[in-house]
Amino acid sequence: MPGSQDFAADPRNAHALVYLNGALVARDAALVSVFDGGFLVGDGVWEGLRLHRGALLFLEQHMDRLYWGAAKIRLDLGLTRPRLVANLKDLLAANGMHDGVHVRVMATRGVKSAPNQDPRNALGPATLVMVAEYKVPDPQLLARGLTLHTASIRCSPADMFDMRLNSHSRLNLIIALLEAIDAGADEALMLDPHGFVASCNATNFFCVRRGEVLTSSGEFCFNGVTRANVIALCRQHAIPIHVGDFLAQDAYAAEEAFVTGTFGGLTPVREIDGRRLPGPLPGPLTGRLRALYESLKDSQAAGHG
Amino acid sequence: MPGSQDFAADPRNAHALVYLNGALVARDAALVSVFDGGFLVGDGVWEGLRLHRGALLFLEQHMDRLYWGAAKIRLDLGLTRPRLVANLKDLLAANGMHDGVHVRVMATRGVKSAPNQDPRNALGPATLVMVAEYKVPDPQLLARGLTLHTASIRCSPADMFDMRLNSHSRLNLIIALLEAIDAGADEALMLDPHGFVASCNATNFFCVRRGEVLTSSGEFCFNGVTRANVIALCRQHAIPIHVGDFLAQDAYAAEEAFVTGTFGGLTPVREIDGRRLPGPLPGPLTGRLRALYESLKDSQAAGHG
Amino acid sequence: MPGSQDFAADPRNAHALVYLNGALVARDAALVSVFDGGFLVGDGVWEGLRLHRGALLFLEQHMDRLYWGAAKIRLDLGLTRPRLVANLKDLLAANGMHDGVHVRVMATRGVKSAPNQDPRNALGPATLVMVAEYKVPDPQLLARGLTLHTASIRCSPADMFDMRLNSHSRLNLIIALLEAIDAGADEALMLDPHGFVASCNATNFFCVRRGEVLTSSGEFCFNGVTRANVIALCRQHAIPIHVGDFLAQDAYAAEEAFVTGTFGGLTPVREIDGRRLPGPLPGPLTGRLRALYESLKDSQAAGHG
Amino acid sequence: MPGSQDFAADPRNAHALVYLNGALVARDAALVSVFDGGFLVGDGVWEGLRLHRGALLFLEQHMDRLYWGAAKIRLDLGLTRPRLVANLKDLLAANGMHDGVHVRVMATRGVKSAPNQDPRNALGPATLVMVAEYKVPDPQLLARGLTLHTASIRCSPADMFDMRLNSHSRLNLIIALLEAIDAGADEALMLDPHGFVASCNATNFFCVRRGEVLTSSGEFCFNGVTRANVIALCRQHAIPIHVGDFLAQDAYAAEEAFVTGTFGGLTPVREIDGRRLPGPLPGPLTGRLRALYESLKDSQAAGHG
Amino acid sequence: MPGSQDFAADPRNAHALVYLNGALVARDAALVSVFDGGFLVGDGVWEGLRLHRGALLFLEQHMDRLYWGAAKIRLDLGLTRPRLVANLKDLLAANGMHDGVHVRVMATRGVKSAPNQDPRNALGPATLVMVAEYKVPDPQLLARGLTLHTASIRCSPADMFDMRLNSHSRLNLIIALLEAIDAGADEALMLDPHGFVASCNATNFFCVRRGEVLTSSGEFCFNGVTRANVIALCRQHAIPIHVGDFLAQDAYAAEEAFVTGTFGGLTPVREIDGRRLPGPLPGPLTGRLRALYESLKDSQAAGHG
Amino acid sequence: MPGSQDFAADPRNAHALVYLNGALVARDAALVSVFDGGFLVGDGVWEGLRLHRGALLFLEQHMDRLYWGAAKIRLDLGLTRPRLVANLKDLLAANGMHDGVHVRVMATRGVKSAPNQDPRNALGPATLVMVAEYKVPDPQLLARGLTLHTASIRCSPADMFDMRLNSHSRLNLIIALLEAIDAGADEALMLDPHGFVASCNATNFFCVRRGEVLTSSGEFCFNGVTRANVIALCRQHAIPIHVGDFLAQDAYAAEEAFVTGTFGGLTPVREIDGRRLPGPLPGPLTGRLRALYESLKDSQAAGHG
Repeated sequence: MPGSQDFAADPRNAHALVYLNGALVARDAALVSVFDGGFLVGDGVWEGLRLHRGALLFLEQHMDRLYWGAAKIRLDLGLTRPRLVANLKDLLAANGMHDGVHVRVMATRGVKSAPNQDPRNALGPATLVMVAEYKVPDPQLLARGLTLHTASIRCSPADMFDMRLNSHSRLNLIIALLEAIDAGADEALMLDPHGFVASCNATNFFCVRRGEVLTSSGEFCFNGVTRANVIALCRQHAIPIHVGDFLAQDAYAAEEAFVTGTFGGLTPVREIDGRRLPGPLPGPLTGRLRALYESLKDSQAAGHG
Repeated sequence: MPGSQDFAADPRNAHALVYLNGALVARDAALVSVFDGGFLVGDGVWEGLRLHRGALLFLEQHMDRLYWGAAKIRLDLGLTRPRLVANLKDLLAANGMHDGVHVRVMATRGVKSAPNQDPRNALGPATLVMVAEYKVPDPQLLARGLTLHTASIRCSPADMFDMRLNSHSRLNLIIALLEAIDAGADEALMLDPHGFVASCNATNFFCVRRGEVLTSSGEFCFNGVTRANVIALCRQHAIPIHVGDFLAQDAYAAEEAFVTGTFGGLTPVREIDGRRLPGPLPGPLTGRLRALYESLKDSQAAGHG
Repeated sequence: MPGSQDFAADPRNAHALVYLNGALVARDAALVSVFDGGFLVGDGVWEGLRLHRGALLFLEQHMDRLYWGAAKIRLDLGLTRPRLVANLKDLLAANGMHDGVHVRVMATRGVKSAPNQDPRNALGPATLVMVAEYKVPDPQLLARGLTLHTASIRCSPADMFDMRLNSHSRLNLIIALLEAIDAGADEALMLDPHGFVASCNATNFFCVRRGEVLTSSGEFCFNGVTRANVIALCRQHAIPIHVGDFLAQDAYAAEEAFVTGTFGGLTPVREIDGRRLPGPLPGPLTGRLRALYESLKDSQAAGHG
Repeated sequence: MPGSQDFAADPRNAHALVYLNGALVARDAALVSVFDGGFLVGDGVWEGLRLHRGALLFLEQHMDRLYWGAAKIRLDLGLTRPRLVANLKDLLAANGMHDGVHVRVMATRGVKSAPNQDPRNALGPATLVMVAEYKVPDPQLLARGLTLHTASIRCSPADMFDMRLNSHSRLNLIIALLEAIDAGADEALMLDPHGFVASCNATNFFCVRRGEVLTSSGEFCFNGVTRANVIALCRQHAIPIHVGDFLAQDAYAAEEAFVTGTFGGLTPVREIDGRRLPGPLPGPLTGRLRALYESLKDSQAAGHG
Repeated sequence: MPGSQDFAADPRNAHALVYLNGALVARDAALVSVFDGGFLVGDGVWEGLRLHRGALLFLEQHMDRLYWGAAKIRLDLGLTRPRLVANLKDLLAANGMHDGVHVRVMATRGVKSAPNQDPRNALGPATLVMVAEYKVPDPQLLARGLTLHTASIRCSPADMFDMRLNSHSRLNLIIALLEAIDAGADEALMLDPHGFVASCNATNFFCVRRGEVLTSSGEFCFNGVTRANVIALCRQHAIPIHVGDFLAQDAYAAEEAFVTGTFGGLTPVREIDGRRLPGPLPGPLTGRLRALYESLKDSQAAGHG
Repeated sequence: MPGSQDFAADPRNAHALVYLNGALVARDAALVSVFDGGFLVGDGVWEGLRLHRGALLFLEQHMDRLYWGAAKIRLDLGLTRPRLVANLKDLLAANGMHDGVHVRVMATRGVKSAPNQDPRNALGPATLVMVAEYKVPDPQLLARGLTLHTASIRCSPADMFDMRLNSHSRLNLIIALLEAIDAGADEALMLDPHGFVASCNATNFFCVRRGEVLTSSGEFCFNGVTRANVIALCRQHAIPIHVGDFLAQDAYAAEEAFVTGTFGGLTPVREIDGRRLPGPLPGPLTGRLRALYESLKDSQAAGHG
């Protein structure tokens, strides 16, 4: 498999420190035991954040989601929320980072006495890792757009595996992505149990059909902070939006499409299952929403968020 | 959460070496990067094996399952099957292990350039870990039996998350187990999408109803080697067995129940959702099947398998 | 099975008269034929009402539901609605009842020529029974709270068995309750066919999550008069309420929970599947809604409803 | 609604005694309290049996089903199985009955302290009723055949309401029957949750298609003793039979159809949803199976069963 | 099968010209090849329109739907929308038609090189047919009303066969209609995959229940122009309307019911599955909505639409 | 869309006569009315047959399926089965055809009085068309293999649209095929409602996994004559075959795959969703089954079938 191309490597990251259980360590020294529950059985939750012009964007929403997820899996992060944020800011300061930085906070069950599922086998506190890297979306993506492939793997209902949980157990999504890669596409488009469009494997999906923005109901997709921001922007700016069921076939016939995520913001889609969407990249409404979202980010960073 | 009690800790394990990417290292030195795909996103497959009287039991079936899983997630283990087995045997020899040993072979996506799902970001070979530990089932369990609790989390169909895959992404099963723990039970009983009994969270489930052994259809449960052996033993010994749909309520009314796994073999169940099953522990048919399975193990170990 | 403890027996009930097909009879003389369709095949509908400070609360809603149910099963009650209410009031007067009284109106297919399903075998008019009893909720329940257990039995969709019908055929709900009793809980929490929380076996379920009241969509639960009142009170008092899908796991993580019914009004929940909900009993929002509901009852009784 | 016509009333029944909780009483004196769980909430199980030439046919199968059902709802019948059979035989003897008699054994939760679902409110033992009546199928039905109507009400899966349980809660089936009656048909044909033919509302359904007998999988229909006998007869006599999924449309195109039940044995069907099935009544294969079943009954009665 | 009676034949139609691929031809000369994709495999879309007082009613909505459908099946109609409308008006002019005319525009894949599914085998342009006929609803229908029969065939979800597409592939609906005809009814009432009322086989269904108009969610029914108009009229005139799930049983208990379509407008329903709805025909609310719809048509025709 | 390439055009077909309602006419004169039910609403059934060495292969099975389908849609073909076969043989004789000929028999509702669904509007007899063409599979396909693309459109259950019916209403399948064409593939692979592999859009699908042949359960695919022959050949020759559920992912990991149909027999598959299957084309087991099937055809043609 050739390397994926959604971001440009940045040499500065090689020297960036990593937060590991209270210490700041070199990237190569950021090691965990093979008996860590995160490694053994994917027992952990994570959060992605974006450092923009000195500010951690939408910080409260991200912390809400992280602590909600930890509570859901009964994981004690070992740090209060303000303390965790302070530690993260210390990491960024130590790395001299100010802008264009992507952060991943990871909390797992920690070292266990035995390599099995049982969380009671955890020997001590949770493992807490924070990685901050200079990482900006490939600028060519804006004009080139992503290609999507509908996977045979579907999104699960929440009584089987809750998609709203940012978990360390992503193998089903990786298998969906592998299908997309095999089909020559960048990312997998995934349907919900009823056959409606739910999500991409790592981002949320939107398309524009007859001037109306469509996105899934939210029941079978990531509980995305960017998704919520885009929906809110549509409503604030009277852009018609349908948050509900639609078909892959409706997406095939869309004028525009894009995906959302903390890392890439809004990324245009060029092609779905081999069908080239009409029009320029990004499409006019995608472009407008991107601009609105960039303004929102700037406004947040300036303290007006 | 108090520690689980399904096995007795063995002090010898503290000094047992661990296989890590070709080297034998001390337990405390068995470390992987926080950028390993196994840690980041549960991107890996594993296999449990049992060393009994010097023999790795049902070795071919376990290797079939491991290599099938790796192929399914497109993971190149980097070792031929004979080579991997040879390395495992070297580990056991180095540890002087002969009997009563549980082995976990883990293969993950290896170190990645970025903490995301994309397997193309793997920088090098797979991570291969082999852990061998002295570990025997708690002997009191035979007389005490397990208590089960039906979880609200259900087993997923294979077009969402294939239960037949021994994956490093187990968080849905851990959440089910957490429900059981909260309810004061040892393990979660899980239903399939249609409401039939499918599996426990880490073992397969059997019960005995009017003299007939019941177990699930196999579509929504672990592809268990012990399960397959028990089914085969029933058929060889003309013990009536139904491999198909049945309800939690049928299990409540069972004469006996037990779970199966590589580690514990057949473990009797005492209670399901607060209902004490009638009769002694283990029940007569459970006892008979246990004896047959022990004979099969001995026979395998003696080279007659 | 030990006796359930959700109400205190009242010795006055032993002497209360029962309405039976136009007559007022002693409790021991309130007998029906074993050929009555209600006894044979659960062929009937009932209604629970509450006498509070001399008034039958929410009488119109209860009569709507009773006559709707009777029409649905094609049962001619034999009395006009005003006549039935008059008879009920006569019963209450004859018993000298004024407050703290629970009423059950039951209407069944009457005596049949043969013990089978066919309603055309009814030989004569419907059987109409009205039982009025002094019955108040156990005052300790407010501080102790109910314990719930998620049953393996799920609520049925309306094309199989319409939960909105207050029927004499409750055996599926009783089986769910038996599961709860076996698990040491007071009442069963039941999921809908899609795995979302639907109802308890005899009451409707609400919980409070991050300050928002959650209750099920209404498609798979009792068509509760108290439920409707609580929803309306939330809306009138700007208490955030979500009437729709949520998971058992969301309920586990709730700040507060309560059930609703005509008999008990709002009853706090202490524990779900072994998980103790945080905080005091009743929780602050439960307490506030209880107070609002009590005011509503008083207002109704005072003729301002 | 005009009276149904599937049997001829027999004047001898007016004087037949009824077994009620250990006593033999006149039909008019067979009364139960309105506080009986059977009347209040359909909390009971029943069994139909046939007295043929002095023998209670298939007695063991019927007793298995009755005691299985009682165990499932946790109802203690209060009598051992031999004792219950002895009491039933005493009833038949007291009534001087020898042939052409239909028996219904009913066991309910007994008198309760309050009119609600909770089985723990039962004040004493179960109510046990046995009704024996001279009752033979209308002989004209053989030549006239039944008319069926596909109901909008579907059979429930066992995790909602187990159709295998002969319960006193039959209102969903009665509602299905009401649809059939409204459509001018004799009985309702009911589909399973997946749209396949499951059952009639009170009997099991079979049809003959290209010489092969079709009946449902058994997962969503009554656990019929006659059904099991007919399936066994087909297998013994090498009559092709498919026990599995088929559509209403396959039934429309059948050469013959019949329903089975303890009372009527095999009853031919003339018409389904207004479509007249071709050929004479009963059809040739229906006739053959009827004859085989009559022989089986005679053989059982002669002690060779 | 006797002829259906929902419209009166009009002798003028025998001489009306038909538009066929650019030419106006006599009815008998309106022929297509047996290799036309429309004939071979139902590969086409159509649209029904109504000429009222010289105006093609709701022309834009109908053209939207036609061109949406053609785009969905990747069929190039070969004519711009204005050109197609101009041709249609020419046809009407050539036939001297002004009022009471029903138009069917049909566009199929055209002549193919082989009788199979592959649209790439089309040898040339699409086949475009326009039929205009004098056709008015049978005036007696208003007082007589339609009879409906619930079919065993259900409406499909859009990931199987999108009901919103006015396709030339209608055999599933015809099979549903055949069930209705066999049952002596005029039209089939069809349920959705979850058992709720979805649609009739060729029209959309509405009923009135306690003064509220009920119609299906729109996910599993025709994307009807008349349906949309009726919903809009209800909203404009503050007539309560529920656009969502309801049961066949709710329809049985309705005060009134009617179906909608371009040809018939609003047609009252007399009977569903043998149940006579109460009250006069048309019912008061049906009558009111009919009048509102007639006004809307007149207003449109007068150029005020 | 470029022309598909699964067969070579044969100039002899231009002059072959076509059977049309009893007459033999030139291909260009094979015309039907635009009022024919086949054209209007896809109201018809068809059958494909193969003329091989002078014999119509598996003629009885094909006639069974044709007459079954006609009966299912209540279409009177107007000809007895022997008469229809005789007419077909006359057509072949008139065309001097002996080998390498594909036949399509089509029967539709005939000319109707109005362009709607109602089959009672048929004015006269069914339209019967028989097309015989020289048509052989592209010989290069054997070595090149087909490419498949999993469509978002799924196969419908039989209570929505029975896949076993060879109908003139194929637009859902054409839409699935259009997805495949857009994705650059030859044919669509379609899943069943539960996510298992069901069928291709115009052929049935088989794959080989670890030496075992896999094909779908038959509940959601074409009732293929070739499919049945291949299954029977496997069983006769002790080739392991699983007729049941499997996933798209199992097909991705197959050693070989092929599709079956009357026209092409067994055609190898090269690639599924962009994944190249391993090994030569055709694969060894595909090659063996092809040879067995060719022998069966020859044997049939020689009169030994």
